[in-house]
Amino acid sequence: MDRLKQQMDFIMEVDKLKKITRQTYLSDGSRKENDAEHSWHLALMCALLCEYAKEPIDVKKTMMMVLIHDIIEIDAGDTYAYDMKGNATKREREEKAADRLFHLLPGDQAEDVRKLWEEFEAAKTPEAKFAQTLDKVQPVLLNQASGGKSWTEHEVKRSQIMKRNEHTPDGSQVLWKYAREIINKNVEKGMIKADE
Amino acid sequence: MDRLKQQMDFIMEVDKLKKITRQTYLSDGSRKENDAEHSWHLALMCALLCEYAKEPIDVKKTMMMVLIHDIIEIDAGDTYAYDMKGNATKREREEKAADRLFHLLPGDQAEDVRKLWEEFEAAKTPEAKFAQTLDKVQPVLLNQASGGKSWTEHEVKRSQIMKRNEHTPDGSQVLWKYAREIINKNVEKGMIKADE
Repeated sequence: MDRLKQQMDFIMEVDKLKKITRQTYLSDGSRKENDAEHSWHLALMCALLCEYAKEPIDVKKTMMMVLIHDIIEIDAGDTYAYDMKGNATKREREEKAADRLFHLLPGDQAEDVRKLWEEFEAAKTPEAKFAQTLDKVQPVLLNQASGGKSWTEHEVKRSQIMKRNEHTPDGSQVLWKYAREIINKNVEKGMIKADE
Repeated sequence: MDRLKQQMDFIMEVDKLKKITRQTYLSDGSRKENDAEHSWHLALMCALLCEYAKEPIDVKKTMMMVLIHDIIEIDAGDTYAYDMKGNATKREREEKAADRLFHLLPGDQAEDVRKLWEEFEAAKTPEAKFAQTLDKVQPVLLNQASGGKSWTEHEVKRSQIMKRNEHTPDGSQVLWKYAREIINKNVEKGMIKADE
């Protein structure tokens, strides 16, 4: 039963994802969201919104991708989207985290999960593009619901959001259009700085 | 775009699942787990442990089932496994919650998700049996990791756990065997009351 023991050890290790805090607030603004909650939300969105994917996707694969996409943050930490310094070392920290964390699993599953995470990061396949789109759209929905709390706290500029979302339409034009309208409204309301 | 609006309204409404607290502690014992974190954990376990399902299962369907299985608790609240009074009114509260919550979705998806939740509750299909097994095994893993905190706080007896897990082997004998060994060890250590 070594295989099952390895799987269970991984499953208990990733419990730590529940303690990795993101910069996005819950919809009621009461506290910041953590990575496990965020990943649950994305997996559910994936199943319910897959009809809007730009290209046909394997839904199960995409659900698994979003469930595991942030696990590396257990070691590497959450790097805020607009943290320039943090983003400079992000890749290196995350690679190291992937080496340790995914390799707690039995060989075949370690390889599968690692590949799936690499695929997400590369953002080239239809599944990865859609997963990336969900990952960008969900915080927009939450920021809007919480009254723009995270945007105002970090004094986020419209140009930063647009730059970060350069590839968001690649996964779904419909979902990007929905998010962009929210962004525009929040620029008008002054929650996002209108720098362009 | 009424359809997308309905989907997004549901997606934002279920954000509240992140605030429904369970009785189980995180593995480090620092705080109690919430339903969204629990659901993420089950979906990941489903993908990684499906090889142990007693009967062949549709993994995608089972993942979706565990992602939505607790959504009704947004209205109905979490009923602790060993709360006799709460469990007497559980079904009625949950049916009412399902009527309101799932019907925020467009008709076809409302029906699909409602059916999937009913299937989970009925625990008759291979998918529902496996999902139920995961739902019972995960808190055993967490309770063990946190030093039996939730068991001792509620003075849980071995007979209560065995009764509650009467059908856990139906989804996976392998996973039940793993959980039962943990339970036995914790009876020996006095974390669970040895009443039989």
